[in-house]
Amino acid sequence: MHIKLVAHVLGLLLIFLSAVMLLPIPFSLYYGDGVHIYFIISALITFLVGFTAFKLTRLDRDVHAREGFAIVTLGWISFALFGCLPFILSGYIPSLTNAFFETMSGFTTTGATILVDIEGLPHGILFWRSLTQWLGGMGIIVLSIAILPFLGVGGMQLFKAEVPGPTPDKLTPRVTQTAKILWGVYVLISAVETLLLMLGGMNLFESLCHTFGTMATGGFSIKNASIGHYNSAYVDYVIIFFMLAAGTNFSLHYRFLKKEFKSYIKNNEWRLLVFLIGSSTLLIGIHTFSQQYSNAGMAFRKTLFQVTSICTTTGFTTADFAQWAFSSQFILLILMFCGGCAGSTGGGIKIIRLYILIKFVIAEIRHLMHPKAVIPVRVGNVVIPRDNVRNILGFLALLTGLFIGGVMVMTILGLDLVSAFTAVAATLNNVGPGLGSVGPTYNYAHIPLIGKWVLAFFMLAGRLEVYTVLILFAPSFWKNLKQKNVGLINQAPTIYFFRSDYFLIPTWYRTTRLLFDSDLVQYKSIL
Amino acid sequence: MHIKLVAHVLGLLLIFLSAVMLLPIPFSLYYGDGVHIYFIISALITFLVGFTAFKLTRLDRDVHAREGFAIVTLGWISFALFGCLPFILSGYIPSLTNAFFETMSGFTTTGATILVDIEGLPHGILFWRSLTQWLGGMGIIVLSIAILPFLGVGGMQLFKAEVPGPTPDKLTPRVTQTAKILWGVYVLISAVETLLLMLGGMNLFESLCHTFGTMATGGFSIKNASIGHYNSAYVDYVIIFFMLAAGTNFSLHYRFLKKEFKSYIKNNEWRLLVFLIGSSTLLIGIHTFSQQYSNAGMAFRKTLFQVTSICTTTGFTTADFAQWAFSSQFILLILMFCGGCAGSTGGGIKIIRLYILIKFVIAEIRHLMHPKAVIPVRVGNVVIPRDNVRNILGFLALLTGLFIGGVMVMTILGLDLVSAFTAVAATLNNVGPGLGSVGPTYNYAHIPLIGKWVLAFFMLAGRLEVYTVLILFAPSFWKNLKQKNVGLINQAPTIYFFRSDYFLIPTWYRTTRLLFDSDLVQYKSIL
Repeated sequence: MHIKLVAHVLGLLLIFLSAVMLLPIPFSLYYGDGVHIYFIISALITFLVGFTAFKLTRLDRDVHAREGFAIVTLGWISFALFGCLPFILSGYIPSLTNAFFETMSGFTTTGATILVDIEGLPHGILFWRSLTQWLGGMGIIVLSIAILPFLGVGGMQLFKAEVPGPTPDKLTPRVTQTAKILWGVYVLISAVETLLLMLGGMNLFESLCHTFGTMATGGFSIKNASIGHYNSAYVDYVIIFFMLAAGTNFSLHYRFLKKEFKSYIKNNEWRLLVFLIGSSTLLIGIHTFSQQYSNAGMAFRKTLFQVTSICTTTGFTTADFAQWAFSSQFILLILMFCGGCAGSTGGGIKIIRLYILIKFVIAEIRHLMHPKAVIPVRVGNVVIPRDNVRNILGFLALLTGLFIGGVMVMTILGLDLVSAFTAVAATLNNVGPGLGSVGPTYNYAHIPLIGKWVLAFFMLAGRLEVYTVLILFAPSFWKNLKQKNVGLINQAPTIYFFRSDYFLIPTWYRTTRLLFDSDLVQYKSIL
Repeated sequence: MHIKLVAHVLGLLLIFLSAVMLLPIPFSLYYGDGVHIYFIISALITFLVGFTAFKLTRLDRDVHAREGFAIVTLGWISFALFGCLPFILSGYIPSLTNAFFETMSGFTTTGATILVDIEGLPHGILFWRSLTQWLGGMGIIVLSIAILPFLGVGGMQLFKAEVPGPTPDKLTPRVTQTAKILWGVYVLISAVETLLLMLGGMNLFESLCHTFGTMATGGFSIKNASIGHYNSAYVDYVIIFFMLAAGTNFSLHYRFLKKEFKSYIKNNEWRLLVFLIGSSTLLIGIHTFSQQYSNAGMAFRKTLFQVTSICTTTGFTTADFAQWAFSSQFILLILMFCGGCAGSTGGGIKIIRLYILIKFVIAEIRHLMHPKAVIPVRVGNVVIPRDNVRNILGFLALLTGLFIGGVMVMTILGLDLVSAFTAVAATLNNVGPGLGSVGPTYNYAHIPLIGKWVLAFFMLAGRLEVYTVLILFAPSFWKNLKQKNVGLINQAPTIYFFRSDYFLIPTWYRTTRLLFDSDLVQYKSIL
């Protein structure tokens, strides 16, 4: 573990963040809300800290797995810490705890809020709040598709297992290219949604903010009643469509754009996502139609919206599902854990993992009947390697342990069982709203101080696939902090690459490239 | 799968049950409650059915794994079906659903009741109700220590893994001997508890009934207020002690009796059980002392009793823990899942499994940091084989799936989330009382008809380690029902053994012997 190297990359990330902090300024100036100055100050502070860290350290060797974990986790924490500056400086969220909670909720695309009156905030602040989600989603796509698989974590390994061998138009193996392509897709789909929402009557500001919340499966709205504010079938269906898109593996979108039109239908995980949303809508719809809405179309729309929002872990709402039947609430609770596809911006366990878990259990039962037979775990025609299955099982065990610990803390802080249970579920799975006192018509403002920090930690752990964060708590992780030139592989190219100028916008993108170029080399040499 | 062979053994088991049904008669006659006639009729019906099944079939080959699973599961179901006859015939629990629920709750040592006024029942009926638990406990000890490990199921495999190699005074490998020894220990400890409870002021009837409930970790009391009725520190501490004994691996008791006095302390699982009970008592005690009881001694006693009762999955109560702090309720909910030691009469997941799960997660995290290293899962100095670890993970996944399905059904039937969640937890883990509408001061009478059958199924599935029951739902399990003489190994001894007379009391014991003698031979030939 080379801590200076980590600091170097974190410095670069902060420099990138400082540039992004300037984006809300045009909106602030246009609406004349007077908060633009706070963004300038925040950007300056962030830049200075980042630049100092960057200049005091240097990149004298490749980034290895351990540094990779540290950069990812500490990177997200730094973004939340510096990203909350505008909230604090402007005085709109004066407490550090609340501001950090809100910013972490943004960057982890959770969407849990401590704000009681959202509409009372200035436009600049609202724009920044929504933008943090979109940036978080951008980070997650690259992280889940490109970085984590190389660190041996995350669901995308399984996606790779499912689509093996050389296919003519598969994603390019070079991560630099991958990042470019995925972000291109992300920006393109975001642009289309913004346009469609504007056609539905929203202005540019509103549609941008809601697009940020949708595409990142975040769920921050700029209205107190969330999307329910608009009470428009058009808006609802547009957002349902794009929530589904955001909960889909972005590799599939890329393939679709490459004219491989059956990419979605051919993917096991995506079909399961659609099946889950469809069957849950049906099951819940029976109740909402008979109990909440006399109109079948309305019942369908409201149910489909809530189901899609929860299953993709977005968290937008158009109805108070805490008033629905207990069985409907329970289905939504299960969906929170399912989450979207691997390689999407969705949180949760990810459908592919649950699918493999079910296959594993079936294999175990068959093994009991035929003790001598070797029964592999398959997805489609592909055998999932044992190591991947073990990795998933470990992930789920860890998630369960974390979940139980979280509920324990929340009940000690005085929350009732349902509120404690769903508060942890909604943050760990990056959903946003829960049930009970954190239900869709309430917020997280009333959670005690310690509870907010714990929940912010859960957002982060859930977002970074648990392992990535928890590994930092292993004592052996922090050994040899000053270790130099150990395990050095292929030093030259990355260093040369980083001797060029850094201070243009694509710095973050370059950082990612750094992570990959080096790790690719390292992993190739291991394999 | 040879169905006639299964019917033959089930016939034997029913003949045994019919003999046991005569035991409540002396109490019924002594107290002159007039229900003795219903036990005679029930015993006759049970005997006739059993004898018919037995005579129409014959044992023409060994019992294999598949028949073993069928005998165990169908055996428990038959016991519940015929065991509820006295309740129905006497008219004290007239509905089949309720009577079956109550009897299944007894034989699975769950202790969940549909009775509203327990004290209104005649002595004979109460004695039978308690006796079903003790019989169930007897079955479970032999099942978990001797039968299931040979079928590749259950926690005792792990116990064996932990204490490997030839030790001078280990349990004899012959199952016949094992059964004798374990039942001897069970009867001995039960006798001591009965005596101690009588010294505390209970009469023979009361102390026998409560001993049955304790030693089986059942929890049926003959008082409406459960053990709280006696309001006696002596009774409380005696029962706490024996609940702990019942939640301990019976092999450890045997070793202790063989003068291996450190057997408990040297066992990892038992130490963890004591640690869990101790730390939970401390955590919960802080709240009960400050909120419920002003007296420290009383707070300790009440807390320790409830914690031990729930952690060993007994379900006796002396306080309404649904009134305790939310964090205390949540700790109890976690303890429900922990359960006792493997090889005890306790239900739940079993502590050794959770311990190995934690070790597995730690190994996985270390594996991420050292991708090339092979990191084994250890308990003490012993490496747990990978197959055992996978078996545990499969078990937990299956349990989780079953649990989610159960809560789903209960919420559809209209139960609120907390009641649905804890009703399923309390039955699947064979605890008894839950929270909400199935809390310690309530009962299961209000659960809709379908719900009672589903919960009875959960009691059975939980009691028989899930796999044993679910394997009967695999279509391939029922293939070749008339298959004969296939896979015949070592036919002669068991057949000759069973040509002797069957109709003395130890028939059940002989049946078990049959199961084992043959399976031992079979498994030996595989290994």
